[in-house]
Amino acid sequence: MLETPKKFTLVSGSAEGPSRLNAFDNALLAAGIGNVNLLRVSSILPPKAILVPHLEIIPGQLLPTAYGTITSDLAGEKIAAAVAVGIGEEDEYGVIMEFSGRCGREEAEETVAEMARAAFAQRKRTLKTVLVQSAEHQVESIGCAFAAVALWY
Amino acid sequence: MLETPKKFTLVSGSAEGPSRLNAFDNALLAAGIGNVNLLRVSSILPPKAILVPHLEIIPGQLLPTAYGTITSDLAGEKIAAAVAVGIGEEDEYGVIMEFSGRCGREEAEETVAEMARAAFAQRKRTLKTVLVQSAEHQVESIGCAFAAVALWY
Amino acid sequence: MLETPKKFTLVSGSAEGPSRLNAFDNALLAAGIGNVNLLRVSSILPPKAILVPHLEIIPGQLLPTAYGTITSDLAGEKIAAAVAVGIGEEDEYGVIMEFSGRCGREEAEETVAEMARAAFAQRKRTLKTVLVQSAEHQVESIGCAFAAVALWY
Repeated sequence: MLETPKKFTLVSGSAEGPSRLNAFDNALLAAGIGNVNLLRVSSILPPKAILVPHLEIIPGQLLPTAYGTITSDLAGEKIAAAVAVGIGEEDEYGVIMEFSGRCGREEAEETVAEMARAAFAQRKRTLKTVLVQSAEHQVESIGCAFAAVALWY
Repeated sequence: MLETPKKFTLVSGSAEGPSRLNAFDNALLAAGIGNVNLLRVSSILPPKAILVPHLEIIPGQLLPTAYGTITSDLAGEKIAAAVAVGIGEEDEYGVIMEFSGRCGREEAEETVAEMARAAFAQRKRTLKTVLVQSAEHQVESIGCAFAAVALWY
Repeated sequence: MLETPKKFTLVSGSAEGPSRLNAFDNALLAAGIGNVNLLRVSSILPPKAILVPHLEIIPGQLLPTAYGTITSDLAGEKIAAAVAVGIGEEDEYGVIMEFSGRCGREEAEETVAEMARAAFAQRKRTLKTVLVQSAEHQVESIGCAFAAVALWY
């Protein structure tokens, strides 16, 4: 099987760019995750995965990542992306939730944290911690906000 | 290279949730595939892959999965998702098709099976079997229907 | 970790189909990449990756791929998809950009090449070469244009 990730890192960033994809690319760079191949996953924290504050990655590697992102070309609009990691008992899996919207950081963070709480409630499990990371951006021309949980080894 | 999957399992489920992503998460749980990291693939059944009725997976694992899904917040709306696996000669690859729409289960199943037949016709291959799995849901507040073919090892 | 790809190949194709997903499937077949499991990545060329003109792949394998695609059911509409690989110094990573739109091949190619140049400029790196591949399609009933960079081993 494909190796299950052992470490995780929360990152976020925002940026402008000359195209929508360049704005996304620049937001990834701002988040420190711009030079890898993101494999988007839907999105569980493996049991015993360790939180590592900084990514140790090599360029071009395949990086399983849960992320929320939003790109807008409406000048002046405020956009935000956020992720939450719900963590329960130490040896059990956690739940990752992603959110993005035309709102500010605070609303994005509250929304995604509530989603993680709901995911734990649905599983009838006790939530011990919710880690949240977010990015907010006010669009100038074409802007992107991005928040992610990278799962690595 | 990344290891080619050797087994496959069809699953489906539907659920309500307090947000669109929670509804999706709950539909995954209802389908028995909620606690893994789905890697969405586009979507061929590897040659000699074996149909296994029940998934044997560990929490947090990376699970290549072809899926159709639809989420709706229109109360009363009927939604459905379906997958089809077109299978030909035993040692050859098969084709996986996904569908979702604002319709009932029967229409989703017929549509996705027809898509699998078309994929075989396009390849000028003889279709022996079409396996179909689906989920139907009538939306209360925020609902999701999900159907998938998980590819595993 | 998941093995980092060592080779890359540019492909493109377009086709009609009886459904949107079949049109996409048929475009993949036209591009020579139809019988594998595409894992969509976002999208860096690994350092030292070698350009190989023709894909050597086995049916059903998991194939990390950066792609642009567009499907349309507006008869007569011209659609196009393009990818660009920006390449700098030999031992460094490159950047892959994807584009699709309701336009012709030439516009798609110019746009995606400009995106690759912008990605290099943002990284303050010197761009040596841009490889571009594209597909254009005039829709009859349901049509799809597809262009990709497959990353393999």
